Amino acid sequence: MAKLLALYKTPADTAAFDKHYYSTHVPLAKKIPGLRRYEVSTGTVNAASGDSGLHLAAVLEFDSLAAIQKGLQSPEGAATAADLGNFAQAGVDLLFFDTKEV
Amino acid sequence: MAKLLALYKTPADTAAFDKHYYSTHVPLAKKIPGLRRYEVSTGTVNAASGDSGLHLAAVLEFDSLAAIQKGLQSPEGAATAADLGNFAQAGVDLLFFDTKEV
Repeated sequence: MAKLLALYKTPADTAAFDKHYYSTHVPLAKKIPGLRRYEVSTGTVNAASGDSGLHLAAVLEFDSLAAIQKGLQSPEGAATAADLGNFAQAGVDLLFFDTKEV
Repeated sequence: MAKLLALYKTPADTAAFDKHYYSTHVPLAKKIPGLRRYEVSTGTVNAASGDSGLHLAAVLEFDSLAAIQKGLQSPEGAATAADLGNFAQAGVDLLFFDTKEV
């Protein structure tokens, strides 16, 4: 399996962020070919060090890193990436990698 | 459900890190009460921005944020946290949060 993590820094207007995220971004991302599972944080994103500085964390699951790369390069992936500019101006870290269970 | 993400910055000696991580840290972490699933990255931790600066990403699943907090506060959780000082000197970000599927 493989995972894509989207770590969104806390925006100035969290209500506007949430509205756009759930009404527009989630529906776009759910169309990405190869997406198997999509979870988002609810409530505070806690950090062991104290304040995480994050408003939202998303965990998307795919079959493989190759499937993530293919999904991101698809028209649906490009549309999802382009939408980040509409609500994630505070910054977002996108991390993606193959995984194994231990 | 809930997730704990451990994002390990790239150490000076990745071979020593891996040896300690798989031989000692994983067995300690797997004893944490309430842990449901434990996945680690294999290969490169890719970032959309280029170099992630990360050597390893771990995704641990629990039933709830309360279960994560209880697990971390258990003797097994304390032993796992204490072990970080033995191999994660380059730094690790621990993030934990409740999740919902969207």
